[in-house]
Amino acid sequence: MDRNSSIAVFDSGFGGLTVMCALKAALPHENILYFGDTAHLPYGNKSREAIVRYASECCLFLAQKNLKLLIIACHSACSAGLVEALQEQLPFPIIGVTSCGIEEVVRVSLGGHVAILGTRATISSGLFQKQIQTKLPKTQVTALACPLFVPLVEEGFIEHPLTEMVVKEYLGEVKGQGIDTLLLGCTHYPLLKKAIQKELGEGVLLIDPALACVQKASDLLKKEALLSERIEEPPAQFFVSDDAEKFKELGQYFLGHCIPSVALYLPSNKAL
Amino acid sequence: MDRNSSIAVFDSGFGGLTVMCALKAALPHENILYFGDTAHLPYGNKSREAIVRYASECCLFLAQKNLKLLIIACHSACSAGLVEALQEQLPFPIIGVTSCGIEEVVRVSLGGHVAILGTRATISSGLFQKQIQTKLPKTQVTALACPLFVPLVEEGFIEHPLTEMVVKEYLGEVKGQGIDTLLLGCTHYPLLKKAIQKELGEGVLLIDPALACVQKASDLLKKEALLSERIEEPPAQFFVSDDAEKFKELGQYFLGHCIPSVALYLPSNKAL
Repeated sequence: MDRNSSIAVFDSGFGGLTVMCALKAALPHENILYFGDTAHLPYGNKSREAIVRYASECCLFLAQKNLKLLIIACHSACSAGLVEALQEQLPFPIIGVTSCGIEEVVRVSLGGHVAILGTRATISSGLFQKQIQTKLPKTQVTALACPLFVPLVEEGFIEHPLTEMVVKEYLGEVKGQGIDTLLLGCTHYPLLKKAIQKELGEGVLLIDPALACVQKASDLLKKEALLSERIEEPPAQFFVSDDAEKFKELGQYFLGHCIPSVALYLPSNKAL
Repeated sequence: MDRNSSIAVFDSGFGGLTVMCALKAALPHENILYFGDTAHLPYGNKSREAIVRYASECCLFLAQKNLKLLIIACHSACSAGLVEALQEQLPFPIIGVTSCGIEEVVRVSLGGHVAILGTRATISSGLFQKQIQTKLPKTQVTALACPLFVPLVEEGFIEHPLTEMVVKEYLGEVKGQGIDTLLLGCTHYPLLKKAIQKELGEGVLLIDPALACVQKASDLLKKEALLSERIEEPPAQFFVSDDAEKFKELGQYFLGHCIPSVALYLPSNKAL
């Protein structure tokens, strides 16, 4: 592992592209690999065991590609304990997007009322709530599952009356309850920032764990003297476990530009 | 294979329970097995190859259980060609819910304008449209992908202003266009019958392929003298490939009663 090694970003599908975008913008000279486990998405409705099994095999495939850092950009996988399970086996550091989000909330919270939005799997794991409550014992913490946000984003209903209505439906419970900080606990949710901010008002600080995650990655590589010294800006490389064409189609929507090529890696299922 | 053999219903997850319910109601003395491939759901966003690979293994597991009939209660799997792929290998008849829906539309259509609703995968496969258009060449056929319907149903938003709004959004295009027959081309959609009927008016005939499928199954078993002669009504048996607890929880919502036990069958991945 040296300065020229790569950074890999793993996600169950598309959401992690928001993390990859932020990473590419902050560290344009890094060689970045992205893996979307499209054969098994979405993770939100799978068991912890299945998630760790599926994700581990993809990450072990990435691990063969001379990495200096692996980012788990999937809250469901982080909540299932993937970071800890992999860190035991792999020699390079692994950062999970979930703990980055938690650390950022703890850092900026005014100590009043924190709201956490996530998929049903993430919220019912209780990981966000427990960790934030432990670190901010005097803060009120409210967690809300918003399972329709992902299909809305994936359907392209970003600024749409339907999305406004769903946002109202989910956030109605906490509106006017003195929320000062809101954690976007799913990688798709930053795309709905505008609608969420509009509903809750400008006084609420929205935390995007992707940005906190990129900051942590950058700090870590700097500290270990592992930042790339390349002059060129290498294009990212994409891998998926099913349907590369569909990934190109939907992926460009997350990235804002086309994806020239996507390689298919079919799980050998040794890990299963 | 004899009168005492079982009928199996296969689906990617929960939607096929609507078919199983109709089957149980029509043929209460049959021994019915249900398999939900919860490790890989939803099929709607997977490739044809992946769908046939995943579903085949589950169906080959069912095939070892002395079957007289297998029902593929998943439109995505039917559209991917699963029925044809399996019928080559298995000795008992296989019925696909998709072709039952098509046959029913052809049987009842007034020859004016047919609308087909389905997931993105089903609609983009073009199977429904092609087959109906071939059999009813003078009929206007309009296909509409309604990808938010499944998450709405799975969130329990059945009679909810949000669902009404989504129904309006998707059906706006065909409202007032002289639709006489509408095919509910996804096993979740019959749960939204009321909202769809309200939006389009009572003059539109809604076709639920589950009912057509059960009729076909019943006719076939009668013709082959394979209907059960049991007096008792055996409880259905349930198998899933991931998270039996979650299946029990959501499944009872589709069935309207609890599921006492669900067995886990972990794919050996020989088929992969």
